[in-house]
Amino acid sequence: MRALLLDPGLIVRRDYPEPSPASGESIVRVRTAGICGTDLELARGYMSYTGVPGHEFVGQVVDTHTAALAGRRVVGEINARCGRCALCLDGLGRHCPNRTVLGIAGRDGAFAEYLRLPDENLLALPDSISDELAVFVEPVAAIYEIFEQTGLRRDHRVAVLGDGRLGALAAIVMRAEGYAAVLGGRHREKLDRLAALGIDAQLEDRLETGFDVVIDCTGNSAGLNRALTLVRPRGMVILKSTAAAGAALNLAQAVINEITIVGSRCGRFAPALAALVSGKVDPRPLISGTFGLDDAPAAFAAAARSPNFKILLKP
Amino acid sequence: MRALLLDPGLIVRRDYPEPSPASGESIVRVRTAGICGTDLELARGYMSYTGVPGHEFVGQVVDTHTAALAGRRVVGEINARCGRCALCLDGLGRHCPNRTVLGIAGRDGAFAEYLRLPDENLLALPDSISDELAVFVEPVAAIYEIFEQTGLRRDHRVAVLGDGRLGALAAIVMRAEGYAAVLGGRHREKLDRLAALGIDAQLEDRLETGFDVVIDCTGNSAGLNRALTLVRPRGMVILKSTAAAGAALNLAQAVINEITIVGSRCGRFAPALAALVSGKVDPRPLISGTFGLDDAPAAFAAAARSPNFKILLKP
Repeated sequence: MRALLLDPGLIVRRDYPEPSPASGESIVRVRTAGICGTDLELARGYMSYTGVPGHEFVGQVVDTHTAALAGRRVVGEINARCGRCALCLDGLGRHCPNRTVLGIAGRDGAFAEYLRLPDENLLALPDSISDELAVFVEPVAAIYEIFEQTGLRRDHRVAVLGDGRLGALAAIVMRAEGYAAVLGGRHREKLDRLAALGIDAQLEDRLETGFDVVIDCTGNSAGLNRALTLVRPRGMVILKSTAAAGAALNLAQAVINEITIVGSRCGRFAPALAALVSGKVDPRPLISGTFGLDDAPAAFAAAARSPNFKILLKP
Repeated sequence: MRALLLDPGLIVRRDYPEPSPASGESIVRVRTAGICGTDLELARGYMSYTGVPGHEFVGQVVDTHTAALAGRRVVGEINARCGRCALCLDGLGRHCPNRTVLGIAGRDGAFAEYLRLPDENLLALPDSISDELAVFVEPVAAIYEIFEQTGLRRDHRVAVLGDGRLGALAAIVMRAEGYAAVLGGRHREKLDRLAALGIDAQLEDRLETGFDVVIDCTGNSAGLNRALTLVRPRGMVILKSTAAAGAALNLAQAVINEITIVGSRCGRFAPALAALVSGKVDPRPLISGTFGLDDAPAAFAAAARSPNFKILLKP
């Protein structure tokens, strides 16, 4: 099949082996996939991943032993757990130490014609939701994860730091869920695009300080330092960036001001899918381009370029 | 009066001006003071503090307009708030942006014959508690702060990282409050001394991983990196170290494992005093030496030397 391979450079292969059926797992033909900041990091060497990247997708089940999934259009949770360890038994399968992660660790991903995932990871889609909307389930779930981890209150003053894909999604979700959030970024053109969506988008060096909560979506390791200057004493910083490089952090500031820093990653798909199906959350204006799989390297380049937000790949 | 001055080197002065009475504040004659890791950091340039250091003390009120304090033996909360800002009105005076901090910021401290603090900061001591026990109220309060900030549960597996003053105190308090805590350190002799106090003290490179909570009391900026490897996914790291230098931190690990990092500083004195008066917490075995104020530089050197824990100064 055709697939984008990372090993360690990016190359489109036309003869990549198709995934073969495995017990409890289904084969999915990829219809649409999204490029995420993590994919760009992987291409720069993050996680030392080799294989097919891609973890945001909508597909169609083409081979399965689970009748309810046969032929269905699906999205899929990306962490495939072992189901037997203490964390799995504790309901924390997304943190299973034996997990594989679609397109990120030990499991070929969605930038290919076909992928394979455990049946329990697949979520069938209602006909009413388009591929272009459903492809956002994974990153939107990562934002909804914030509500599951923290006691975010609607009277909290919230700042979203970063005007990239994730920051834009976070601001859209916060607004949809009734939080007064301001987004701080550095790219005038992106901020204008976000303001046109009704988001309070400002240059981050002009943000006031004293926020109850700062959500760091900068995707770079300096984001936490900046977040620590923006949050009030006893406030909370939510880290959504898996930045590859370390940063020289002033830990003293977090201690003196008794800040709580919450690392936050993937979330459950169900709340995100519900929000997208209902129309409450609609990130489609963030789609900046759609490329064929053969043009995947160009798609990656476009995804890294401002003022683009989300770039889609269609195998 | 005699006082230890930091400007920027440490020097004992015999002609330092005595604090003069101020509205709402009392003059306290220092009876005993303790040297803390923060004092050692200040001597290395942390906070660019100049003035008299020292913030752990027991003293006697010698000049006051508050009758209930006259002549009383006292301890004192170290953050002097403005009382008018939003944080003060919100009950967070310890985080008042206009605050002075005894011996740390804008207010001469306890390594002197006399100090001055607001009346509202002073807590009269019962006769039953000795100076040697009461001098621990401030650092013990910093440990009790953990219970006020976090939902620490007695079935949590807790690791205390660091076998210095603060780590030892944290382990003593955890044990006294019924938590199963293991202390990880690097100094065999200190660990043996702590084990003799009934603490589960181990070499930190032999600690198992998977702790629900790790309390970083290392006092160095590498502590957080180590804590992040010891804590389980979705676990909590409590940062008690105001380390001066930055560290190259792997933020990705905190995000991937969805760790919550809680910065924690000073605490309320009342719960700490109650625990010391009741005999539940007794850190006096940690006292490694007592020096006169004239020998303060030697006392600082002793405080920095393993296997010493707490060094006291008596003006």
